[in-house]
Amino acid sequence: MRLATIDNGTRDGRLIVVSPQGDAFAYAPAATLQELVEGWEAFSPALQAIAAFPEALDDARLLAPLPRAWQWLDGSAFQSHGDLMDAVLGITKPKTDVPLMYQGMSDTFMATGTEARFPSTDLGIDFEGEFGVIVDAVPMGTGAAEAMQHIRLVVQINDWSLRTLAGPEMKTGFGWVGAKPACAMAPFAVTPDELGDAWRDGRVCLDLLVDWNGKRFGAANGHAMGFGFHELVAHAARTRDLVAGTVIGSGTVSNENFREIGSSCIAERRGIEVLDEGEPRTAFMAFGDTVRMEAVDASGRAPFGVLHQRVVQA
Amino acid sequence: MRLATIDNGTRDGRLIVVSPQGDAFAYAPAATLQELVEGWEAFSPALQAIAAFPEALDDARLLAPLPRAWQWLDGSAFQSHGDLMDAVLGITKPKTDVPLMYQGMSDTFMATGTEARFPSTDLGIDFEGEFGVIVDAVPMGTGAAEAMQHIRLVVQINDWSLRTLAGPEMKTGFGWVGAKPACAMAPFAVTPDELGDAWRDGRVCLDLLVDWNGKRFGAANGHAMGFGFHELVAHAARTRDLVAGTVIGSGTVSNENFREIGSSCIAERRGIEVLDEGEPRTAFMAFGDTVRMEAVDASGRAPFGVLHQRVVQA
Repeated sequence: MRLATIDNGTRDGRLIVVSPQGDAFAYAPAATLQELVEGWEAFSPALQAIAAFPEALDDARLLAPLPRAWQWLDGSAFQSHGDLMDAVLGITKPKTDVPLMYQGMSDTFMATGTEARFPSTDLGIDFEGEFGVIVDAVPMGTGAAEAMQHIRLVVQINDWSLRTLAGPEMKTGFGWVGAKPACAMAPFAVTPDELGDAWRDGRVCLDLLVDWNGKRFGAANGHAMGFGFHELVAHAARTRDLVAGTVIGSGTVSNENFREIGSSCIAERRGIEVLDEGEPRTAFMAFGDTVRMEAVDASGRAPFGVLHQRVVQA
Repeated sequence: MRLATIDNGTRDGRLIVVSPQGDAFAYAPAATLQELVEGWEAFSPALQAIAAFPEALDDARLLAPLPRAWQWLDGSAFQSHGDLMDAVLGITKPKTDVPLMYQGMSDTFMATGTEARFPSTDLGIDFEGEFGVIVDAVPMGTGAAEAMQHIRLVVQINDWSLRTLAGPEMKTGFGWVGAKPACAMAPFAVTPDELGDAWRDGRVCLDLLVDWNGKRFGAANGHAMGFGFHELVAHAARTRDLVAGTVIGSGTVSNENFREIGSSCIAERRGIEVLDEGEPRTAFMAFGDTVRMEAVDASGRAPFGVLHQRVVQA
């Protein structure tokens, strides 16, 4: 099942269920995605019973499926990306067997087709293609196996990043504020079963196709997460109850053969250039640049839809 | 003016205006504090016109004035605290002229009188007495002088911290997730003018009295912030629009003469012990311990009320 949110003039929009063909919809039994995840079990029978999609989707303006969340915790679960980012930022992280995770801005998830506003290109504007999950309420101390059952929806995210601020903020130990403004979310949130075989071990085993200014930049596959989403959820819940609607991110999708398949963010390519050529050669984004992200399955279908934005000056 | 939130069975409660004597209240023209800060200018005339307080406050159960927020950004603006924490955690931070700030859990602010639940005392359970402000919507790029006008309310916060996780999480550069579970907020949110002369240069110039298990532990004054709250707000808004209802924290209140007046968190006292005696001697909190925090003015009045909690096993 695929869910989306129509812009109805309210901050949280109106939740809909999208037809298998993606061209029609039915109104969901919960008014918003937040309401749905707060009462998933209660809404589930009515949600599952939806068989007709009487409304045309074409004309509907879609928001992010969850336009704002009470909590956004982003991991960095792809080791090949983490190693490169450390190299380009000059960070030496202690070895650890727990996932890397930070808390980010959750009051806004931008919609596909909207402009991404930043104050200056001096900030090193970069995209980060990721997958994410949305959980219902997860009690503190929930283990990984049980956490899997709390994963209600899977989403695709662009975690906009400002690299000039990222390194200095990391070095304070406080994590990122300036370097991590609002993310964007692809239009469809899907139930794990919707992904079929591509949902394995808490991982989204799909290629994430990333195009920068219309040119293929990366096609990494989500299977390579060092921790599954259920493990990220359990990590997040170690010392806190996770509020229903918490979004947990994978971090930038990355594969070890990034020299062949490309990257899901510019910083990773720059890291490769540092390793291979001694210095970064690819500049970050300019105003007017576009980025397009689409995860595709073996049949070429994009379960999350397309996430595309243009960068503009704030 | 002092605002509080009554528990009416909803997640955000019902906003009230508290009488000057603190024993009675009137219902506020906005239903919740979030609604108020989203429409401050519109609600202001009705808010200012409240002159009668027909309801007795004694029997009302109060939540945190803002029981959940879309965003919580906590600074570390007291230099004497920052230097000590670096010493005890073994962190060497680069010198910087921008404020330190991290994004923390905002979906829950606990109320005074509630239990603070943690999974284990092995985590190094600690309190952090702070002040904070609540802003209305602040556009990206707002400067410090203008940011001052967006500070609508001042609050008092206990930023619960788990020190065993804090150092390792800092060293990843990603900031804190496990080390920073839900904060608590004292019962009354006050307008800056309510503080009179104690609101100066964007600082809360009041002693924050901290009692651990009934014994005075600290009495640091909020005047010593290296950055005023208006500067913290401007820093937070550098690359993002701040959503109305964003809470910005001062970090642990600390003064240079901490050896005489004490500290607002245990970690700071342990830092002093490391400096003076070569090792920390004060243990962190045990289950059953209590902490009480109260900011008092020259006349002994506590504008934010009293924030007290007991630590229990989750």
